[in-house]
Amino acid sequence: MYELMERINEAADVKKFSMDELDKLAVEIREALFNRLTKIGGHFGPNFGMVEAEIALHYVLCSPKDQFVFDVSHQSYPHKILTGRKAGYIDDNRFSEDSGYTNPAESEHDLFNVGHTSTSISLASGLAKARDLKGEHRNVIALIGDGSLSGGEAMEALNVAGSELNSNFIIVVNDNEMAIAENHGGIYKNLAELRKTQGKAANNIFTAFGLDYMYVEKGNDIPTLIEAFQKVKDIDHPIVVHIHTVKGLGYKIAEEHKEEWHWCVPFDRNTGAPTIDFGNCEDYTSITADYIMQKAKKDKKFLIITPAMPGSVGLSADMRKELGDQYIDVGIAEEQAVAMASGAAKNGAKPLVVTNTTFIQRTYDQISQDVCINGNAVTILLNFTSFAGLTDVTHLGIFGIAAFSNIPKLQILAPSSKSEYLNMLDWALDQNEHPVMILIPGNEVTDREADTDYSQIGKFKIEKQGEKVAVLALGDFYQMGESLVNAIKENMGFEPTLINPRFASAIDTELLKSLEENHSLVVTLEDGILDGGFGQKIAAFYSTSEIKVKNYGLEKKFYDRYNPAELLKELGMTDDAMVEEIKRLLGK
Amino acid sequence: MYELMERINEAADVKKFSMDELDKLAVEIREALFNRLTKIGGHFGPNFGMVEAEIALHYVLCSPKDQFVFDVSHQSYPHKILTGRKAGYIDDNRFSEDSGYTNPAESEHDLFNVGHTSTSISLASGLAKARDLKGEHRNVIALIGDGSLSGGEAMEALNVAGSELNSNFIIVVNDNEMAIAENHGGIYKNLAELRKTQGKAANNIFTAFGLDYMYVEKGNDIPTLIEAFQKVKDIDHPIVVHIHTVKGLGYKIAEEHKEEWHWCVPFDRNTGAPTIDFGNCEDYTSITADYIMQKAKKDKKFLIITPAMPGSVGLSADMRKELGDQYIDVGIAEEQAVAMASGAAKNGAKPLVVTNTTFIQRTYDQISQDVCINGNAVTILLNFTSFAGLTDVTHLGIFGIAAFSNIPKLQILAPSSKSEYLNMLDWALDQNEHPVMILIPGNEVTDREADTDYSQIGKFKIEKQGEKVAVLALGDFYQMGESLVNAIKENMGFEPTLINPRFASAIDTELLKSLEENHSLVVTLEDGILDGGFGQKIAAFYSTSEIKVKNYGLEKKFYDRYNPAELLKELGMTDDAMVEEIKRLLGK
Repeated sequence: MYELMERINEAADVKKFSMDELDKLAVEIREALFNRLTKIGGHFGPNFGMVEAEIALHYVLCSPKDQFVFDVSHQSYPHKILTGRKAGYIDDNRFSEDSGYTNPAESEHDLFNVGHTSTSISLASGLAKARDLKGEHRNVIALIGDGSLSGGEAMEALNVAGSELNSNFIIVVNDNEMAIAENHGGIYKNLAELRKTQGKAANNIFTAFGLDYMYVEKGNDIPTLIEAFQKVKDIDHPIVVHIHTVKGLGYKIAEEHKEEWHWCVPFDRNTGAPTIDFGNCEDYTSITADYIMQKAKKDKKFLIITPAMPGSVGLSADMRKELGDQYIDVGIAEEQAVAMASGAAKNGAKPLVVTNTTFIQRTYDQISQDVCINGNAVTILLNFTSFAGLTDVTHLGIFGIAAFSNIPKLQILAPSSKSEYLNMLDWALDQNEHPVMILIPGNEVTDREADTDYSQIGKFKIEKQGEKVAVLALGDFYQMGESLVNAIKENMGFEPTLINPRFASAIDTELLKSLEENHSLVVTLEDGILDGGFGQKIAAFYSTSEIKVKNYGLEKKFYDRYNPAELLKELGMTDDAMVEEIKRLLGK
Repeated sequence: MYELMERINEAADVKKFSMDELDKLAVEIREALFNRLTKIGGHFGPNFGMVEAEIALHYVLCSPKDQFVFDVSHQSYPHKILTGRKAGYIDDNRFSEDSGYTNPAESEHDLFNVGHTSTSISLASGLAKARDLKGEHRNVIALIGDGSLSGGEAMEALNVAGSELNSNFIIVVNDNEMAIAENHGGIYKNLAELRKTQGKAANNIFTAFGLDYMYVEKGNDIPTLIEAFQKVKDIDHPIVVHIHTVKGLGYKIAEEHKEEWHWCVPFDRNTGAPTIDFGNCEDYTSITADYIMQKAKKDKKFLIITPAMPGSVGLSADMRKELGDQYIDVGIAEEQAVAMASGAAKNGAKPLVVTNTTFIQRTYDQISQDVCINGNAVTILLNFTSFAGLTDVTHLGIFGIAAFSNIPKLQILAPSSKSEYLNMLDWALDQNEHPVMILIPGNEVTDREADTDYSQIGKFKIEKQGEKVAVLALGDFYQMGESLVNAIKENMGFEPTLINPRFASAIDTELLKSLEENHSLVVTLEDGILDGGFGQKIAAFYSTSEIKVKNYGLEKKFYDRYNPAELLKELGMTDDAMVEEIKRLLGK
C-alpha cells in the first residue's frame, strides 16, 4: 500500500524517484493522509491540495540546508511525511508523534512552531537576512496560502521583501481560491485576473510590492512544479511563485465543499459523514449562531464582523447570505475587523466582532487605541476561551484574560450559564458606553436565572451567602466553584460563600470589603493563567488586609497538547485537593 | 496678520473665500503654525505639507456631515484651525486647548482620538459601513500619509475597501515621499512609478487592491485640489486620491531636512535652532546609539531592526549608513520587525528591535507566537517606557509591563542605572535562550556597579539589607526606592531592605520567601499601571502568608497630558505620604 513511501526515510530520498514514481508517491501520500484524517481528524483541504507542490519542493531543493517556512503550517503534512515522519500518518499507534503543525522539536526540517496565519514571509525574511549577514548560501522558501495574504503581517512582509532583501528569497503563493471560507478583499480580484491571464496581467499586486513574479497554472502537476522550482532555485533576489492549486484535491466531497473540508473530524471515507457522535445537545456555537440571526432580524443596526472563520460561531454560508449587509467578513485581518468596528460604533451601528481567543491577540493595539481610548461600544465575542478547548500551543485560549483585562475601559464579561451569556450579549450590544469583550462559555450548556443589566461595572454577584471562605468562581469555572462549595460544606461543616464575578476585568471593591466581616479566606478560580489575570487583582486588593487569598488557575506557560482533566489534577484543582489546601490555610 | 483667519470661525466659512483668498489663507495658516511650533514645538513637516489639501477638503466637503479621519492625526493642525480652533495656534495663552492630535472632546469635526499610524482607512471604513446600514448620505474621507501605508492595518483596510465596501469612500493618500525618515518597502517603488507617470502606470498598488484611483501631481495647489475633490465628492464607490505634496512646505530649512523637521521642539525661525537648552548631559538616547554603533563593529552577527523611527534611539542617517547590512528599517511595520527578528535569531543573528513602548503593542501576537513560543533570542529595546516620558493618551508607556510581562518565556528587564542597562543589553544580545525586552531608563543618567550576568531568570538583587520593611523598586523607580528607604530610616528609626528586582516579568520566590523571616511589609514601586503588572505578582505570592504588601504604581486608566510630579502626589507616591502609609500599615 505504501510501496514508494517505504523508500522515503529522509528528505533526500524523494530525489531518487522517476516522474512516474513521484505521481504514484502523491497517491500514496493521500492514502496516508486519509489514514490519519479519517481516524483522528485534522486539516484536510490544505494538505490534499499541496501534496504535489511539497513533493516538487523536496525534489528540487535540499532541506534542511534549504529552509522551508510554512504559513499556519496546517498544510505541512506532506512535508512531514517526506522528512522522516511518515509513521505519524501510516501507523495508527504513532499519530500522537505528530503535532499537526510544523514543530522544530519534531524535526530539523521544521523551522518554527506555527499556528497563526500570515507569518511565513516575515519569519522567512529574517532567516534570509541572517543568512546574508553570515555569508551563508541556502535557499529560503516561504509558503503561504492566498487566504493568508490578507493579514497585515503578510503584507508588511511582502513590502519589505520587495525592497529590503536583495538576495535569494522564494515566496510560494498557494492559490486555491479560498481562505477557510471564501476569500474577501480586493487583492483576490487581482489574483483572479492573474489566474485568468496566466500571470500576464500588467497590474499585479506582487510586482506592485516590488517583487519579481512567476505564474504556474498547473499547481498540482509535479513535472510542471519541478520545472518552476528549478528555475527559481538559487535565484539572487526575491520572487513570488504563484501556483494555482485545488484545495482538497483527491477527495471529491472535499473538492466540492471546500469550506466544510478545510478541517475535519474523524469521518467515513465513503460518505464523508463524521464517525464521532456529537449527540443532539445544545451547544454554545449553535446558541451563538441562533442569537446572531435573531438579533439581526430585530435590529437593523446590528453588524457582524468576522476576520474570516465565520464557522467558529456556526455561521454557515446560507446564514451569511441571509444576514446580507449586516454581515461583513474582512478576511484574515483582525486589525481591520476591530478598527472597522470602532468606526461603525462611532456612527451608530452595533458591531459584534467574532473570532477565536488566540487570534484576537493580533489586534491588541487596535483594541486599546482604536477602540478603548475612543470609548466606542464595540463588542468582541471570543470562542475557545477555555483551557479545555484548543490545546495546541499555538491556539491556547488561556492568555486572553491576562492580555486584555488590563486595558482601560475594556469590560471583559465571563458568563457562567446560557441565560447569563445571552443577557450579556444583549446588554453589550444595546449599550453605547463601553467596549466589551465576552468569553463564550466552553462548558456544556447549563442554565440559571441571570441579570439583564451589567451597567454597574465590576459588580459581582453573590450566588450563595455563607461564611469563613468565599469562592470567587469566574466564567467557565463557575461550576467548579459550585462543586467546591458543596465539598467544603460536606468536609468542613460550614457553608461557604459562592460568588459569580461576571467581570474578569474589574473588581467589586465594596463586596470584597464586606467579605472581611465574616470571612478569612478568599479562593479564586479562573480559566486562564494566573499572572496578570483576575485572581491577582483580588490578591492585590486584600494585600494589606488580614484576609488570605488563594488563587487557582493555570501557570504562565506555553502548554502543549495536554489532557485537561490531568492538568487540573496537577494544578491541585480537584475538590479533594482544594479542600485539603483550604483546611491548611485555615489552620485546621 | 490673521486677516482672513479672522473670518474663519466655523468649518463652512472657508467656502465663502475666493481662490486668491484661499491662497492667502494658506499663508496665514502657516504663520499660525509657526506661532505655535516655534513656541511649544510639535509636528512640523506633516502640517506644513498639508495646508492646501485641508483647505481644499473643507472648501469642497461639509464637515461634520462629511467625515474626515486623519491618520496619526499629526497633520490635522490646519483642519483644527479651519474648524473653530484657531485660538490654539494664534493665542499663546490657549495653546493647551489643542491636543496636537484629533480629539472628539475638542470638536465634533474630530471623529477619533488617534496617535498611532495606519488606522485611518480602517476606522473610516467602519464609519462608511454604519452610514450604509443606516441609509445615511455623507462623504467619508480617510487621509493617510505614504509612510503609514506600510503598516499592516492600513493594507488590511485597503484590501477590504477594495472589495467589501460598495459605496462612497474617499482615501486621500498624502504622498510626500517620506515616513518620519525615508520610506522603506517595495510599494514605494510603485508610488514613485505612479508619480513619474502622473498616475498612469498600468501596475498600480491601489488598483491591485481593487480600488478606483486618481492622481493629483500638484498636491499643494488649492485650485487643482479643489477640482480633484469636487470630482470625487459624492462618489458611489471607494477611490484613492493620490496627491503629491511637499513635506514641510513653506519653511526652507524643513524642506531640506525633512526627517529632522518631522517634529520639532521650540525653535528660532531664522536659524531653525532649538530655543530650549538640553544641556550637555549624557542621556540614554545617545548612550543607546553609541552602544549600537560599537556593538555592530565588534559583532558582525548583530542586526538592528527598526519599524521606522530610528531617531527614537538616536540613529542618524549617517549612522544608519555606517551600519550597512547590519541595519534594516522595515518601515512602519512592527509585526514584520518582530517576526523578522525571530527568523534572524533562528539562523544565528543577534537581532535588536528598537521602537517606542506604545508602538510595540502592535505586535503583541508576534511576540507571543512568532518569538516566544519558538524561544528565539530576540531582544526588543523600548524607549519612552516611563510615565514621565510621553504623556499624550495615545503614546503612554505605562501599559508595557502589564501587557508583556504575562507572556511566557519573555524576560522583561528594567535597568536602574547606566551600567546595568549596558550590561543587560550585552547579556541579552549574547545569549541565545531567551526572548528579552529591555526598558530603556527614562530617568536622568545615574550609575552604579551592576552585574553582567542575568541568566538566573527572575533573580532580584538586594542592594541594601535591612529589616521590617522591604522596598522592591523596579527600573525607573529604583531611585524613588533609594529615597524612600532613607526617609523610612530617618522617620522610623530602622534600616529597611532595598531590592532592585531587575526583572519585571518574573519573581524571585527564594528571596521573597527569605524576607518572611524579619520583614512584615513589602512595598513595591513600579513605573506603570498596577493591574497585571509587577507588584500584583508580589501581592499574589504573599497572599497566603502573614506578610503585607503595598503596591505603588499607576491606575489602569487612559491618562492624558498630565504633570508627572503632580500625578505622583495624587497617587500618594511622595516620600512623606509613603512613610505615613507604611507607619499605618505597620500599626504605628
